[in-house]
Amino acid sequence: MNNNTITAPKGFLAAGVKAGIKKSGKEDVGLIVCPSGAIAAAVFTTNKITAAPVQISRKHIESRKIEAVVVNSGNANCCTGKTGLKNAVEMCQQTAELLETNPHNVLVASTGIIGHKLPVKCVKSGVNAAFETLKADHSAGENFLKAIMTTDTKPKSAIRSVKIGGKNAVLAGCTKGAGMIGPNMATTLCFITTDTAISKNMLQKALAEAIGCSLNRLTVDGHQSTNDTAIALSSGMAGNATITKTDANFKKFAAVLTDLCSDLAKQMALDAEGATKMFTVIVKGAKTREQATKAARAVADYDLVKCAIHGNDPNWGRIICAVGSCGIDLNLDKLSCKIGNITVFRNGSPVKFDTKKASNVIKNIQHTIEVNLGIGKAEDFCYGCDLSDEYIRINADYHT
Amino acid sequence: MNNNTITAPKGFLAAGVKAGIKKSGKEDVGLIVCPSGAIAAAVFTTNKITAAPVQISRKHIESRKIEAVVVNSGNANCCTGKTGLKNAVEMCQQTAELLETNPHNVLVASTGIIGHKLPVKCVKSGVNAAFETLKADHSAGENFLKAIMTTDTKPKSAIRSVKIGGKNAVLAGCTKGAGMIGPNMATTLCFITTDTAISKNMLQKALAEAIGCSLNRLTVDGHQSTNDTAIALSSGMAGNATITKTDANFKKFAAVLTDLCSDLAKQMALDAEGATKMFTVIVKGAKTREQATKAARAVADYDLVKCAIHGNDPNWGRIICAVGSCGIDLNLDKLSCKIGNITVFRNGSPVKFDTKKASNVIKNIQHTIEVNLGIGKAEDFCYGCDLSDEYIRINADYHT
Repeated sequence: MNNNTITAPKGFLAAGVKAGIKKSGKEDVGLIVCPSGAIAAAVFTTNKITAAPVQISRKHIESRKIEAVVVNSGNANCCTGKTGLKNAVEMCQQTAELLETNPHNVLVASTGIIGHKLPVKCVKSGVNAAFETLKADHSAGENFLKAIMTTDTKPKSAIRSVKIGGKNAVLAGCTKGAGMIGPNMATTLCFITTDTAISKNMLQKALAEAIGCSLNRLTVDGHQSTNDTAIALSSGMAGNATITKTDANFKKFAAVLTDLCSDLAKQMALDAEGATKMFTVIVKGAKTREQATKAARAVADYDLVKCAIHGNDPNWGRIICAVGSCGIDLNLDKLSCKIGNITVFRNGSPVKFDTKKASNVIKNIQHTIEVNLGIGKAEDFCYGCDLSDEYIRINADYHT
Repeated sequence: MNNNTITAPKGFLAAGVKAGIKKSGKEDVGLIVCPSGAIAAAVFTTNKITAAPVQISRKHIESRKIEAVVVNSGNANCCTGKTGLKNAVEMCQQTAELLETNPHNVLVASTGIIGHKLPVKCVKSGVNAAFETLKADHSAGENFLKAIMTTDTKPKSAIRSVKIGGKNAVLAGCTKGAGMIGPNMATTLCFITTDTAISKNMLQKALAEAIGCSLNRLTVDGHQSTNDTAIALSSGMAGNATITKTDANFKKFAAVLTDLCSDLAKQMALDAEGATKMFTVIVKGAKTREQATKAARAVADYDLVKCAIHGNDPNWGRIICAVGSCGIDLNLDKLSCKIGNITVFRNGSPVKFDTKKASNVIKNIQHTIEVNLGIGKAEDFCYGCDLSDEYIRINADYHT
């Protein structure tokens, strides 16, 4: 089988094991290792409450080279006080000892329930077991993918190849996240590996840009989690001349990374808790980009819009209501709206349209809603998903 | 039967009739008439997109005396262009002709689906029929109540008596609203009648205050509708010396009005689409009242909190996540949280608590969540309700 996981780029090993943190008994501890040491970049949650692993990784990301990322699912190690911080540090220490390196060269991430102490024994034996099973093959990458899942119904990964300076480079990524997702930093967890040689600064720049117009444009329930972390690791083994400035090679790399992250963002939207489809809200004609962003997000976040989309209902009134409610500059007489290519509202008045055709647009697994404010030239977009009774079931029955 | 409806205060007649606007065939046109002319005050939606009746009533509220309010449900007359404005004006004209007064002395309100032209014939015959059946008794008030309902499962009304300057005064109110409800102006429609003699300015002041700490503190799905309107009418027939300044009588009147509106707000929360219970989020220890308001609303609006409450789950992690995500000043080490009287989180660390007892608190039809930010002295609150699969059913199946 071709390897299309995070172990596909040269220089990476991975593992995912069942450590007993999850009640389901599924994979819950994962490791990514770059034995040669990786250039690393990261983007973290902007929630003011951050989990212990986020606090620790924010420090460790300063290291010149990162040798491993240790992850657990089933427990967020968040709001767990000093013990939580100690436990996150120990996850790095244990991994560092196994790899014979400094704990500062290890990043840590956790995802799962908030406010419960990490079951330290499980995690410790999990990290040992993961270390024993580290491999560079497809199944090792797949196991890592499973180990970061929580309410995800399927693993989410993507891969891209690109010629950089005449050399074949590979970028691979995986992500988890199904609820508690709202810009900015709509990720929960996202890990990207590449063998492209690139400096730390330029990798950080490319990652921030890519996340900015992919995962940060996704909203499932409007709230950013306490644990959101996106990490990019570069082994530099593709053999290209190291990218150190904003040249053609950087632009090529950044474009591919953005494409990879957009792929992951759409997979997340489609696998959002209870979601049966996703949609893209495009807001044009705004006075400023910030206002376009705000309006797009308001529409994508509005439960009444999400319910209407679940019911295949071209209820544009709710879209207009969300735009009017979000506090941006508006002129009703200039406002227009399209569902797919069908204009449903133009310059403040309803347009007669074929509701069956519009309903068919919404029935698609992906569709676009376009709002034109008609008062400026700025635009932006947001990904959203429908809201189903399954979302309620998952989140009312998921007990602490 | 004692009259506890909006026709209870002296000087008011009401009616509610079936005019064929609603597919269900239920009451959908209502009238309130004050033959002697009422002092009137109003608060309208802050959504930048406003329905035609809101635009018209905003002008007519300037009249010295208001003689009638004409209302329809089943159609919001919103985003209906110039025809919509004309139709709203005509509703006032027709009512004015029947009452032999000026159209400017008539207020108009509509609620229902957005973007559909008002079925003018139905409305016209409805207004005629309502005029024919105007009465001052309980059943007339009840019929009006029914005529303003949309997805409400029950009529919502409240009544209060108070001695003002030695005279018996009565305040009565009714409201409709079950979805598309978010501060500010969490009403959809609210009508208050009183026989207390009070000046227009002071009635406006009392209404704004009362709505500010009742209906404006309620969120069902975080968005304000395009049609929200609260109207207070005073016939002045209680015989008290007219309230014209902020004296003891005004304070008494304002307090009773606030109490009446809080009663209505709670009824709305409990009857919100799909809701099985309501809760109050109190945020204390904030740096400013604005920050307390923002945090309380963020918690009450967060779907994951609403789902947890539906499932009787004391999932305080989601509460903390919402507070961290809303952008206010925070210090995790000072943050505490209570569910009812049970402390679940103190100074940034989880507290061991009896989850069964906490779950029992949430099982109540009303409970309180308290968040103490511990960094200031400001506080505020917000009412919210749980999110159930019934909400999805109502809003995915409600087709345009």
